[in-house]
Amino acid sequence: MEVSPVDVMAAAEALRIPAAVDLAAIVVGALTGGLLAAREGFAVSGVLLLAVSGGLGGGLIRDVLLGDLPPVALTNRAYLPTVAITAAVTFFFSGWLSRLTGLLVVLDAITLGFFTVIGAQKAQILGMSTPAVVFIGTLTAVGGAVIRDVLLAQRADIIQPGPYNAVAALIGATVLAVLAGPVGLDPLPVAAAVIVLVAALRVLSVWRGWEAPVAVDL
Amino acid sequence: MEVSPVDVMAAAEALRIPAAVDLAAIVVGALTGGLLAAREGFAVSGVLLLAVSGGLGGGLIRDVLLGDLPPVALTNRAYLPTVAITAAVTFFFSGWLSRLTGLLVVLDAITLGFFTVIGAQKAQILGMSTPAVVFIGTLTAVGGAVIRDVLLAQRADIIQPGPYNAVAALIGATVLAVLAGPVGLDPLPVAAAVIVLVAALRVLSVWRGWEAPVAVDL
Amino acid sequence: MEVSPVDVMAAAEALRIPAAVDLAAIVVGALTGGLLAAREGFAVSGVLLLAVSGGLGGGLIRDVLLGDLPPVALTNRAYLPTVAITAAVTFFFSGWLSRLTGLLVVLDAITLGFFTVIGAQKAQILGMSTPAVVFIGTLTAVGGAVIRDVLLAQRADIIQPGPYNAVAALIGATVLAVLAGPVGLDPLPVAAAVIVLVAALRVLSVWRGWEAPVAVDL
Repeated sequence: MEVSPVDVMAAAEALRIPAAVDLAAIVVGALTGGLLAAREGFAVSGVLLLAVSGGLGGGLIRDVLLGDLPPVALTNRAYLPTVAITAAVTFFFSGWLSRLTGLLVVLDAITLGFFTVIGAQKAQILGMSTPAVVFIGTLTAVGGAVIRDVLLAQRADIIQPGPYNAVAALIGATVLAVLAGPVGLDPLPVAAAVIVLVAALRVLSVWRGWEAPVAVDL
Repeated sequence: MEVSPVDVMAAAEALRIPAAVDLAAIVVGALTGGLLAAREGFAVSGVLLLAVSGGLGGGLIRDVLLGDLPPVALTNRAYLPTVAITAAVTFFFSGWLSRLTGLLVVLDAITLGFFTVIGAQKAQILGMSTPAVVFIGTLTAVGGAVIRDVLLAQRADIIQPGPYNAVAALIGATVLAVLAGPVGLDPLPVAAAVIVLVAALRVLSVWRGWEAPVAVDL
Repeated sequence: MEVSPVDVMAAAEALRIPAAVDLAAIVVGALTGGLLAAREGFAVSGVLLLAVSGGLGGGLIRDVLLGDLPPVALTNRAYLPTVAITAAVTFFFSGWLSRLTGLLVVLDAITLGFFTVIGAQKAQILGMSTPAVVFIGTLTAVGGAVIRDVLLAQRADIIQPGPYNAVAALIGATVLAVLAGPVGLDPLPVAAAVIVLVAALRVLSVWRGWEAPVAVDL
């Protein structure tokens, strides 16, 4: 499969995601990453690095795997400055921001859904198979968290039992891949529904203490 | 060097590895990864992620470095479903599969040899230099294990003393790079011999307790 | 943005960095990585892997993100053999080399500056925006250390308080991106000045105990 820059630009066009929504998701991702680093007493470079991972990490992995290089994270002129400003905010106001934990859980869940949709749609427009669309969608959603855990030398959060995270993204990406793929529904309402679905699964699993299932031994 | 999709397809053609052998190696890699995750009590997302790493991780790293993007792991329509089914099997039958440890050591060793050959041959067909062929061959063989260790926040197995793993792949890749490269022997018998060599080195080092040499101080 | 192999070759041409300087930086990076592995009693594969990470890791990340694949680390025929020879030296003479710690701090600091410049210049020549030039320059400089920490399952050095490392690279990359970018100064003297600046910041922070600032709570 040949992925030309023109195809990718056409794909971005076809997504027609309002730029403000896109940037909002990156801000929330960078906020979560930077806040964690600031609260743990990391250096300024650590706050920046975790903000970049949280805001742009999933998209970086997605674009490397899809061969859309340099990645959108570097070619879109608004992204890196937005992440840098967000990192600076967390650097100076971590105490104040920490009081917003409840709000951040919700914003984070919506971002998880948004990144799932962005990743899956881009893979779909580039003509990937349904399983590849699911894979790329899920990886875009959780990639930032995986990079963060790796840099912190923590066992990746998504492989452990706990509230739905990768599982919510996986379900959402599968729904999108099937409904907007073989079933052929209009991509826009499907995308909106999947964002709501992923965010709801994530928030409910945190609030109700749902845990991703672990292996059984039949 | 320009790597066009056509070159890569011609390369895959030239390898002429039976699809069944290829899939078998991916199943064994995914089985080892998924089984480890299932036995450690990881969530379903962890079992999937470690199965993907074990079965497709080495090939993902190889294709990113060779610029063959999107990687074969995503464009071959059989790979991701095969890994997902294998992950499901380890998810439900980890206890039963664990009894096969002896068999898995042998299958794993053969897979190490197979991934070494696949990686080295692809680099060779794309016209890489002999050292680059050795590097790519070794990395394809151990890449899945490295990704697994990184996700588990364990010191990478291959940098520590212990049974031959990277060392077996390194020896095999060097033999292939030289014999099928400058020496100019027929690639097919060389590939077969290297698979046997790598698998034998790995199995013997496990059985006889051979350890990779550590630094000396002359 | 389309990055053709021809552009990249023209870029390498335009840099006109003497090949000896280039190789010297890779030797120092590989020496630092290999020496660490040898002193910690790692296997031969670990010494090789950390030497490759230290000498070529930053450049590998840079080229993957810029889409210049296969990366220069693999296409330049001198790099991998140079790293392998350096790894062999650390494997056999780690005790003797360890006495050079003072010298290594200085060489390492110069290498940090050099990798910053190489990364930032390459991004600049490929037409990236100023923030992207800063990002790539910094990542090229610290990428090898990040890969090393990840393989050792250590919390990445650059996110923790301590002597300037990523911070020195970040300052240097910003100076280069602005002076050789929008300001339009001659790239060569700017490059030389930035190498001195980064190396000085790094060495002084080690000697004087300067630490990268941590988050405050306004």
